[in-house]
Amino acid sequence: MNAPLPTHLLPQIRQREIPAAFLDVLKARFGANCSTAQVIREQHGRDESAFTTVPPPAAVVFAENTQDVSDAVKLCAEHKVPVIPFGVGSSLEGHLLAVEGGISIDVSRMNKILSVNAEDLTVTVQAGVCRIALNNEIKSTGLFFPIDPGADATIGGMSATRASGTNAVRYGTMRENVLALEVVTAQGDVIRTGSRAKKSSAGYDLTRLMVGSEGTLGIMTEITLRLYPIPETIQAALCSFPSIRDAVATVIQMIQLGVPIARVELIDGNTVRMVNAHSKTTLSEQPTLMMEFHGSPNGVAEQIETVQELAKENSGQAFEWASTPEARSKLWTARHNAYFAAIQSKPGCRAISTDTCVPISRLADALLDSVDEADASGIPYFLVGHVGDGNFHFGYLIDPNNPAEFAKAEQLNHSLVHRTLALGGTCSGEHGIGLHKQEFLKSEAGDGAVAFMRTIKHALDPLNIMNPGKIFSW
Amino acid sequence: MNAPLPTHLLPQIRQREIPAAFLDVLKARFGANCSTAQVIREQHGRDESAFTTVPPPAAVVFAENTQDVSDAVKLCAEHKVPVIPFGVGSSLEGHLLAVEGGISIDVSRMNKILSVNAEDLTVTVQAGVCRIALNNEIKSTGLFFPIDPGADATIGGMSATRASGTNAVRYGTMRENVLALEVVTAQGDVIRTGSRAKKSSAGYDLTRLMVGSEGTLGIMTEITLRLYPIPETIQAALCSFPSIRDAVATVIQMIQLGVPIARVELIDGNTVRMVNAHSKTTLSEQPTLMMEFHGSPNGVAEQIETVQELAKENSGQAFEWASTPEARSKLWTARHNAYFAAIQSKPGCRAISTDTCVPISRLADALLDSVDEADASGIPYFLVGHVGDGNFHFGYLIDPNNPAEFAKAEQLNHSLVHRTLALGGTCSGEHGIGLHKQEFLKSEAGDGAVAFMRTIKHALDPLNIMNPGKIFSW
Repeated sequence: MNAPLPTHLLPQIRQREIPAAFLDVLKARFGANCSTAQVIREQHGRDESAFTTVPPPAAVVFAENTQDVSDAVKLCAEHKVPVIPFGVGSSLEGHLLAVEGGISIDVSRMNKILSVNAEDLTVTVQAGVCRIALNNEIKSTGLFFPIDPGADATIGGMSATRASGTNAVRYGTMRENVLALEVVTAQGDVIRTGSRAKKSSAGYDLTRLMVGSEGTLGIMTEITLRLYPIPETIQAALCSFPSIRDAVATVIQMIQLGVPIARVELIDGNTVRMVNAHSKTTLSEQPTLMMEFHGSPNGVAEQIETVQELAKENSGQAFEWASTPEARSKLWTARHNAYFAAIQSKPGCRAISTDTCVPISRLADALLDSVDEADASGIPYFLVGHVGDGNFHFGYLIDPNNPAEFAKAEQLNHSLVHRTLALGGTCSGEHGIGLHKQEFLKSEAGDGAVAFMRTIKHALDPLNIMNPGKIFSW
Repeated sequence: MNAPLPTHLLPQIRQREIPAAFLDVLKARFGANCSTAQVIREQHGRDESAFTTVPPPAAVVFAENTQDVSDAVKLCAEHKVPVIPFGVGSSLEGHLLAVEGGISIDVSRMNKILSVNAEDLTVTVQAGVCRIALNNEIKSTGLFFPIDPGADATIGGMSATRASGTNAVRYGTMRENVLALEVVTAQGDVIRTGSRAKKSSAGYDLTRLMVGSEGTLGIMTEITLRLYPIPETIQAALCSFPSIRDAVATVIQMIQLGVPIARVELIDGNTVRMVNAHSKTTLSEQPTLMMEFHGSPNGVAEQIETVQELAKENSGQAFEWASTPEARSKLWTARHNAYFAAIQSKPGCRAISTDTCVPISRLADALLDSVDEADASGIPYFLVGHVGDGNFHFGYLIDPNNPAEFAKAEQLNHSLVHRTLALGGTCSGEHGIGLHKQEFLKSEAGDGAVAFMRTIKHALDPLNIMNPGKIFSW
């Protein structure tokens, strides 16, 4: 069912020899928490990307605490065995594939909320806590953690990929919302970065270096996050437009006016159709903005007035409101299910997902030409976007056994990325580089900046055991 | 007039031999833009800290563009000569002292605003642009750059120390507001980090690694910043309280309620007295909050209503308003002049400035005990704080020729920092580590995290020529 890796990545698939003694030592230390069952290994050797998993990691260690992670990494360092951290497997760029062999460390049992500091709007969690469980757990404090990438990912995984999602336009991404970390280094040492203070100038910003490092510099075991008061008023609405251009113009204008909108998502007409079929909704099958407004009653009323006026000027239909928590939940579930709705629309397909992000003024330029190209290609696709951030995703729906379709989708992606870079944007707004976007990273950052990253990696992980082969080649 | 370095730093003062040929080569390349005049060198070998400058750098290169910086660093690398970037010299922790000799690169002539992208709320500037000039230059766009550390520092210097100041409670610090950089590496290569896109997951966050690295990993030459719409409504007010405890309680409550206040500064009664004497103001000589509210007319009215209610509950006096731009300017100039007012109050003194920052709920605990200690010491001081962030500064006013006073001030600082760390805070909210806080950094981050930083430094600057001896020892 999976697609082969693109040929330019093949040199990075270099399975290392695992020393015979290593698995014995690992099992002696972890007992039943170390599995070599085929099904477990296969489950840990793939993610939501379209790429093949062959072969899976040699073993999976289920860590229950920081000491377990530290001990496992120390054993790996001693035997020069690669180690790949695993949360729930929802990453999208091949992050979890054991391209150089080694073991997986599953942190999903490290799911304790360690301390809620409601007075300071912070919480400290273990890396395996999932975002929905976190929000359920802290609901009684009147606070919430806004970052919502769609999938019910772990906080560790979200930190590792610098995830963001629908609320980022107002609340920022994991970059802005991780305050402090506990990290197991490539040597198995445990360090702490940052503090619960809101700001700091105390030395290098190791927290931000780790966030988004995709498991290549160490394994995050504890994470301190910012929380926010649950807004006094929440209103959500849909507005459909005759064209993507009109919808995007509305978004650009609201962002430029500084409207503090909490969510503004674009979903194109064709994707609305897929969502309707999957989620049994009856949304108008036109380009649609899904919006959410947070604030005081007056503040929300002001925001809505401004946005309604802008939408009207851009030929938007009247707002359809989702005012109750249930209606809002249905709306956002439909949005989040767009990915699965699209996958279901073409049985057996996989999605090649793009993740470009441009400065807001270039959003129409980046998007409209790419829509034309995708339409011309004949490849079915979905299109959704966190457009308030200038970030959107095409999902090209391909038959993974059809190399021609695969190549065509990669060509569309390539063209989109290079258009984006010319407009001052980035090849990845929130999914990370993983295996898939390494060539794009080189085009974006330049050889000098990639060499700078590589120097850091070589220094902190001289044995190249931390999720090797990801972000850039060794 | 300056104080000696604390004895624990003496081992770091290791003047390196400058090869005889080096200054000749430097002069041949830079001509009149390379100065070895004593007065120029001395001016570039000190900052606003209390520490001695002896001896100053061997030469000062006035860079006019990135190529100049690159060429100078390449010559330094070739001859293993330290290089210290210089903006306007307003740093506070000994950042600019040539403790291992070498040269200073003055970037103040690199003061061009390279591009304003008003539609995207971004601007790209050369590192030597000062913040007031930037705001004057972009005023016609209706946008502003909010970060305001008091001093009219360069954007390069503010980035290097991760500065913040009075507006950070609403707009964040340099960490949140630098989007992209051009950097000259320790090898003299020019790299770019980040992009103008609002968010990115494209590889290691080199932008955030450079911001706050105090010149030790490279020299920032171009900086892309976020801008914000000038608020529709701005209101500023003073409110005095019978005690610091009451003022602080008001701040803690407003932050916990999520009031999006733009500025909330504490200034104690004694410091108000110094300000009155210096700035010819007639403020009530009691603990005072200086506040500013930004937003729509309704939004500002809501914020003010909430804060007035909280202040009243905590025995605050009626608000005194500064409603015109002129009155606001006078208010904030008085606040910013607190440092100079204090220095003037004790002729010949220097200030040992503290910079701790705690989670907001611990602000009273951190502050009140330290006030008692400072009062008991007999050392005169000023006290101001960006209290909405949990950040405040004591300035102990010492005679730099009196070792006993110096030691007493250092003891107060030490006690404050260790209280702060026990409360989950940081030794530096915004000034950086420089020379002065290296022991505090070790206490805060732990040896493991400092070793992690050192590993990065060793890898990126193996000759240790980039502002050596700062943040941590080699």
